[in-house]
Amino acid sequence: MQVGVLGTGNVGQTLAGKLVSLGHDVRMGGREAGGEPARAWVAQAGSGASEGTFADAAAFGELIVNATAGMHSLEALAAAGAERLAGKVLVDVANPLDFSAGMPPTLSVANTDSLGEQIQRAHPDARVVKALNTVTASVMVAPESVPGEHELFICGDDAAAKAQVSVLLESFGWPAASILDLGGIANARGMEMYLALWVRLLGVVGGPRFNVHVVRG
Amino acid sequence: MQVGVLGTGNVGQTLAGKLVSLGHDVRMGGREAGGEPARAWVAQAGSGASEGTFADAAAFGELIVNATAGMHSLEALAAAGAERLAGKVLVDVANPLDFSAGMPPTLSVANTDSLGEQIQRAHPDARVVKALNTVTASVMVAPESVPGEHELFICGDDAAAKAQVSVLLESFGWPAASILDLGGIANARGMEMYLALWVRLLGVVGGPRFNVHVVRG
Repeated sequence: MQVGVLGTGNVGQTLAGKLVSLGHDVRMGGREAGGEPARAWVAQAGSGASEGTFADAAAFGELIVNATAGMHSLEALAAAGAERLAGKVLVDVANPLDFSAGMPPTLSVANTDSLGEQIQRAHPDARVVKALNTVTASVMVAPESVPGEHELFICGDDAAAKAQVSVLLESFGWPAASILDLGGIANARGMEMYLALWVRLLGVVGGPRFNVHVVRG
Repeated sequence: MQVGVLGTGNVGQTLAGKLVSLGHDVRMGGREAGGEPARAWVAQAGSGASEGTFADAAAFGELIVNATAGMHSLEALAAAGAERLAGKVLVDVANPLDFSAGMPPTLSVANTDSLGEQIQRAHPDARVVKALNTVTASVMVAPESVPGEHELFICGDDAAAKAQVSVLLESFGWPAASILDLGGIANARGMEMYLALWVRLLGVVGGPRFNVHVVRG
């Protein structure tokens, strides 16, 4: 499959690298084409990897991954172009973390709205699925690096899109039973607000490589 | 120990009942003395149980538990009286859930502030410890009802108060290693915002009797 990955940072590079390793053709998109991180990624990812602008990546992808910093996601997706996202599954991995007041960050949108909803409203013809935003990049693509059972949450308004994303997540190593569908895209509020706990657990746990297991009584 | 439990609902009754069963003397406080739920609780809880107003319960307790509905906690604590809370450990169990727009609830305070912080600011001489707000009442007092490892979070500005609350939680059945101290009271933001995920997991899990286990990679 051709995948457009928006974002050239750690999350974008990790996801794009995993997708290439699984045999997909991946175009990484940035604010401008030819940026240093994207070119370095292409050089080491090898066959199947390419880079360009947000619009280039969106045009290339049959499926699009938003791995931009959440504070800039709406701008990045506007640059990608609504017409290049229309009808496509858009996996929103971003968290609207605002570091402007230092650590721990706040959320730039929360409680009565979410980034996932903002993206869906801005791009009503895209099939937005919120996923993967609750774990660090290395865990996204190697769930077995956290031992035992633990879960991912997904949500979105398009059931077929969520099914397609679930298959993709399973190819990353997430067992089907570990993927908890919370319902429509408004549930992105829960997935994003959990980050307020996650950023605090980061210090207690001693690093980002952790996840939660929902234990039922 | 003499404990004042503010709140006559399910959470207050469950915590007060557990405290009596552990040998503590408990006065349950409500908006008015002699309310039906409080009287019924006293009748069945037996020796060691009494009820009165918020102020009565606060005056009685060496340690105070805020188990009121979060939207009304500041009002309840004002009625309890700052002078009756001063110097005492105040365990804040409440969540500022706003059901006015239906399910799932939003939070009446979030992101850049929290109920725990509001309470500490309103009562600077109380020693506020946020705890127990991330599990349903029955799990608060019977952690073994959820099998295997799972955690509670606590936070507060007073280390000695947190140590005292930890001992109390251990008497409820929480293993010491399951109590994760997130730091100062501002971390109540994380503990309360997690509720936005919790209320959504409620539907997926099929009931409130669940908790999360933080799994480390």
